[in-house]
Amino acid sequence: MTMVRKLVLLGTGLIGGSFALALKRMRQVEHVVGVGRNLANLERALELDVIDSACQDAAQAVEGADLVLIATPVGQMGRLMQAIAPVLAPDCLVTDAGSTKGDVVALFREHLGTRLAQCVPGHPIAGSDLSGAAAARYGLYEGRRVVLTPLPETTPDAVARLEALWRLCGAEVYRMTPAQHDSIFAAVSHVPHLVAFSYMNALLERDNIDACLDFAATGFRDFTRIAGSHPDMWRDIALANNRPILDDLRRNVAQLQALIGLIERGDAAALTGFIERASRARVAWDARDKEKQ
Amino acid sequence: MTMVRKLVLLGTGLIGGSFALALKRMRQVEHVVGVGRNLANLERALELDVIDSACQDAAQAVEGADLVLIATPVGQMGRLMQAIAPVLAPDCLVTDAGSTKGDVVALFREHLGTRLAQCVPGHPIAGSDLSGAAAARYGLYEGRRVVLTPLPETTPDAVARLEALWRLCGAEVYRMTPAQHDSIFAAVSHVPHLVAFSYMNALLERDNIDACLDFAATGFRDFTRIAGSHPDMWRDIALANNRPILDDLRRNVAQLQALIGLIERGDAAALTGFIERASRARVAWDARDKEKQ
Repeated sequence: MTMVRKLVLLGTGLIGGSFALALKRMRQVEHVVGVGRNLANLERALELDVIDSACQDAAQAVEGADLVLIATPVGQMGRLMQAIAPVLAPDCLVTDAGSTKGDVVALFREHLGTRLAQCVPGHPIAGSDLSGAAAARYGLYEGRRVVLTPLPETTPDAVARLEALWRLCGAEVYRMTPAQHDSIFAAVSHVPHLVAFSYMNALLERDNIDACLDFAATGFRDFTRIAGSHPDMWRDIALANNRPILDDLRRNVAQLQALIGLIERGDAAALTGFIERASRARVAWDARDKEKQ
Repeated sequence: MTMVRKLVLLGTGLIGGSFALALKRMRQVEHVVGVGRNLANLERALELDVIDSACQDAAQAVEGADLVLIATPVGQMGRLMQAIAPVLAPDCLVTDAGSTKGDVVALFREHLGTRLAQCVPGHPIAGSDLSGAAAARYGLYEGRRVVLTPLPETTPDAVARLEALWRLCGAEVYRMTPAQHDSIFAAVSHVPHLVAFSYMNALLERDNIDACLDFAATGFRDFTRIAGSHPDMWRDIALANNRPILDDLRRNVAQLQALIGLIERGDAAALTGFIERASRARVAWDARDKEKQ
């Protein structure tokens, strides 16, 4: 018997599609329904066997489902939860893949308040520049981390079921509170993106911008890769997780101002200390991270 | 006949070593002398045939040389120029590989003022996390850019000779003034490094730093890669190129403060605009850069 009878992807892109593919390969899902607004994308998902059937109506799609993965931008989740609430089967597990959790938990409470026992907010850490069903692939979650932020109301059984499914996809599963999640990801994901956007905008103010971009090389490429990310997604994240993000952005401003002071004063010793502190931390992280792999 | 009879590397690491290897492969250099303070590194360079002989004394090494490449940190260049000035052969071409040019030009003027006709300050753009002679490799400069910033006193023949050598290494050669060079590299190299150091230091102020680093993923890895760079080198660059760097750092602070204001006010439309401007510029740069390759 498969672990999932009918999986519904609300949002049929890289994240949802790769989840479906992983479960299909393990023969742990009987039928996958893809829901989305972009018909061409749904057709592509069918062609690639990411999904077995496509549907444009979320409520109709989830009938009889035992697992729903909401893998859209967070901005669309409230509407979808509201649409599916009346038709969800009592035992149907609902999870999501949003990169912020405090706001998604609030949506779960607002729209699915009577069935929180079966709701497990989650965040698979598998960012990529790519999007759409065509980007979905087997193995995306191998060795990747998935954070689950169950609610006090969520049953241990629901969490365990979802955890087992992500493990089957090859992921390492962690549990924490939504607040812990949002604080950590503000620090190591959201703020780097916002600092990279700000850097690009500062660069665009230069008179010689074309000459500058002509000589941008590997360091620039890596440093700014995340600055090419989707504006709507990152606007939503910045607003949804504003408190920890604002704290970290202010810390970045303070560090930059301290650095400006050191350079203005030509304080070589303090400048060495400033850079050494950063460099050592980065080198130590890299060593630790490689050890884990 | 080879283009270079005796090449002296003042500093026998990735940059100098790879230049020597490229010229050796093209059979355009008869003898390469490696100079450096680290004996083990010089021995490794000999074993790997990066150099043909090693020497710890710069003045002794350059006797009879027709090309000297100063490929040390900029902080060591003045002392080396001073040491070699009395013994340089009249036709010997002197160049460097420093990442800043205004300060290196000042050193050329100070220490080699009587022979600027043969001096061609340069900057091969081939950064890497690796260093030391063991990191030197054939092909490092294939398709890479090299900027030459000749002085008004430099003879066209000297510039043409050096340009031909870098072309033999597979590099594209550009000429500009030291000020143009320093402005461009402040924007796309120096400031990204300094912003990355500042970001790491802001992160280190957090109480939950260990948990944060545990969940740092690909975006963090790329964004902070340059934060692992050598403190001494980057202190020197920050001080040497302080004026354009300070301008750009202040522009970064202003952008971050604007962003903080948008998030505080929850101004979704302006926030979308802010991110879109950055994202479009990065995506356009990427497309243009890939086209070139």
